[in-house]
Amino acid sequence: MKLSDLGERKIVDKILSIIGDNHLGDDSAYIDVDDSYLLVSSDVIRKETHLPNVMTPYDIGWFVTSINLSDIAAMGGEVIGVLLSLSLPSDLDEDFVLSLIKGAKDCVGKYGGRILGGDTKEHNEITVSGTAIGRVSKEEILFRKGAKPEDIVAVTGHLGKAGAGYLAIKNKLDGVELRGLIRPEPRIREGRELAKSRCISSCMDISDGLSSSLYQLAKINDVGFTIEREKIPVSEEAFKVGEILNIDPYSIAIDFGGDYELLVTLSKDKFDEIKKKVKIYEMGKVTKEKEISIICHGKKRKLQDRGWEHFRQRL
Amino acid sequence: MKLSDLGERKIVDKILSIIGDNHLGDDSAYIDVDDSYLLVSSDVIRKETHLPNVMTPYDIGWFVTSINLSDIAAMGGEVIGVLLSLSLPSDLDEDFVLSLIKGAKDCVGKYGGRILGGDTKEHNEITVSGTAIGRVSKEEILFRKGAKPEDIVAVTGHLGKAGAGYLAIKNKLDGVELRGLIRPEPRIREGRELAKSRCISSCMDISDGLSSSLYQLAKINDVGFTIEREKIPVSEEAFKVGEILNIDPYSIAIDFGGDYELLVTLSKDKFDEIKKKVKIYEMGKVTKEKEISIICHGKKRKLQDRGWEHFRQRL
Repeated sequence: MKLSDLGERKIVDKILSIIGDNHLGDDSAYIDVDDSYLLVSSDVIRKETHLPNVMTPYDIGWFVTSINLSDIAAMGGEVIGVLLSLSLPSDLDEDFVLSLIKGAKDCVGKYGGRILGGDTKEHNEITVSGTAIGRVSKEEILFRKGAKPEDIVAVTGHLGKAGAGYLAIKNKLDGVELRGLIRPEPRIREGRELAKSRCISSCMDISDGLSSSLYQLAKINDVGFTIEREKIPVSEEAFKVGEILNIDPYSIAIDFGGDYELLVTLSKDKFDEIKKKVKIYEMGKVTKEKEISIICHGKKRKLQDRGWEHFRQRL
Repeated sequence: MKLSDLGERKIVDKILSIIGDNHLGDDSAYIDVDDSYLLVSSDVIRKETHLPNVMTPYDIGWFVTSINLSDIAAMGGEVIGVLLSLSLPSDLDEDFVLSLIKGAKDCVGKYGGRILGGDTKEHNEITVSGTAIGRVSKEEILFRKGAKPEDIVAVTGHLGKAGAGYLAIKNKLDGVELRGLIRPEPRIREGRELAKSRCISSCMDISDGLSSSLYQLAKINDVGFTIEREKIPVSEEAFKVGEILNIDPYSIAIDFGGDYELLVTLSKDKFDEIKKKVKIYEMGKVTKEKEISIICHGKKRKLQDRGWEHFRQRL
C-alpha cells in the first residue's frame, strides 16, 4: 500500500511494531544517564512544504531549531543544544547558509543551549534536519502517557497563530502578524515549570494541531476528551484572519498545526497551584468514554481529527 | 559566493567561526554527563547522490545507520542507539519503508543499540537523516586532535572496498563484491579497543577518503604525514576492479570515500601492544613538516587531496 493511502500515523504504527519497543511514541527519545534522562529529538523540514517564501534564511534557522526544542519542552527538559544537518543546493549563496546558522544559534542560545555539531550535504532542495538534545531529572520527566479521566486538559498559549499566518500568506492578506508561524517560541520555560510541579499527568506539543494532538493523546491513554469550545484560547490573529476570510476562527485554532504550544492534562485540584507559575488555559477534561467531543453553545458534537498528517494532505 | 565555488570544507569553516565554539570539528558532538561523554552525531543521505540503485530498502536502512555509528566508533564510543528522520515521497510503497526500518534495526542491534525514535515527513526524493547516540568514558574518548610528529599513522582495515564497488556499478562490471559499498560495517568494536588502550593520539573515520582525511587530520594537528604507498592495505576488490578498468588500485584506495575505517595515530612503541587487540595496518608516520607526502618505490611526492567534498564534485 502506498504511503498516501496509509497516512503518516498508520505507517508510524507499522514502524513501531517492527521496532518492537514500547519506549517510543513520546516527543523525544529519552536515555537513561545516571539520575536523569537525556532527551533527543530529530525533526526535518524541507523548503517546499514547511517554509513559506516570506521566511528569511535567519527565520529558517530559528524555525528548525525551535521546532526541535519544542520536543524537549514537551518532555519537561532543559536544553543542551542542537545538531543541524544541512542539505543544500550547490548554487546557494554562502550568505544564506551563514544567516541560517545565525538564526539557529540565536534560537538555541535564547533557550540556554548551543550548536553542538552537524554536517552539510548537497541536495536539490533546501532540507534541514535538526536534532535537539536536552536533559531532565527522572522524577520530573513528562510523558504523553498518564492522562486519567476527570483530569483537566489545558494548553500553554493561544492557538491559531500559525494557522492565521499561513492563511494570511496564502490569501495575500496584509497586516497579519506572522511571527507565530515563522518564529515559533518553544515552551522550554513552561515545560520546565510544569515538570518541576510534578503534577502533570501527560504532556505533548501540539505541532500537528489541537484536534490531531487530542486524538493522539486519547489513543495513547485509552481515554477521550470533552473540550469546551468557548474556553479554547484563540489567538487574535485567528480572529482577524477568520473575519477577513469568513472562516470560523475556532477552526483555525483547532485544525491548523504549527503553534508549538504544550498540551497537558493534570488533576483538577492542582490547577490553581500550577496557574500561579505557568500561564495555562483550561479547555476541558479527560473522559473515560473514548470519544473526543466539543461542546459548543451547550451542544456536544464529535470533534473531527483534521490536523496535519504527512503523506495524506496537500497544503 | 556560491557553495559550489567555496566547497564544503570552506563553508564549514565559516559556519564554525559564526558558532564560535572550539568544541566542534570531531566526528561526533560530545556532551558532559557525569563521568562520561554522551556522543551525538547526525548525518543525512539522499537517494540521488549517496545510494546506488542496486541498494535494497533494507540496505538503505543499514547504510544510514552504519555511517552514523561510524562517527561514534571514531570517538571510541559504545552504541546507545539511533534516531531516523525519513523524508519520503507519498507514492512510495509501505514495504519500502518497513524494510528500511528493518535494515536500520538489524544494524544498530548488531552493534548493541536500538532505534530510539525519529519522524516521517513527505519529500519528493528519499532523504534519510540519522542521528547516532553513543557513550564513552572521559578517560577513553578519542579526538581528532592529538597527533604528534613521529607517531605512526594506521588504519583499521582495507581501503578501496567502497570505491571498487562504486566503479563496478558505474562500469557495469560483474563479480565484484559490493558489500563494502552498500553494507559498510562501523568499526565500533575496534574503536572501543583503541579507546580502552588509551594510547591513541588521534582518531577519525575516513568516510571522505584517505587523502581527504589525512588533509583534515593534518590541519587540525598542525602536522604533516608521510605515507608509504606499499604499506597501504588495499582491498582485493580495488585490485580486481583496477585491473579490469586499468586504474591504479592504490588510487582507488586513496581517493575514494565510503570505506568507514578508522584512521589513527599512535606512539611507535605502543603499536605492537595495540596490534594484539585490534587489526590495524601501519601506513606511515606523522611529520613536523606540514606536507602530506607519499613514498612510492623510494621516491617521495606530494599526496593530492582528492577525496570527496560536497558542493564541488559530481559523481
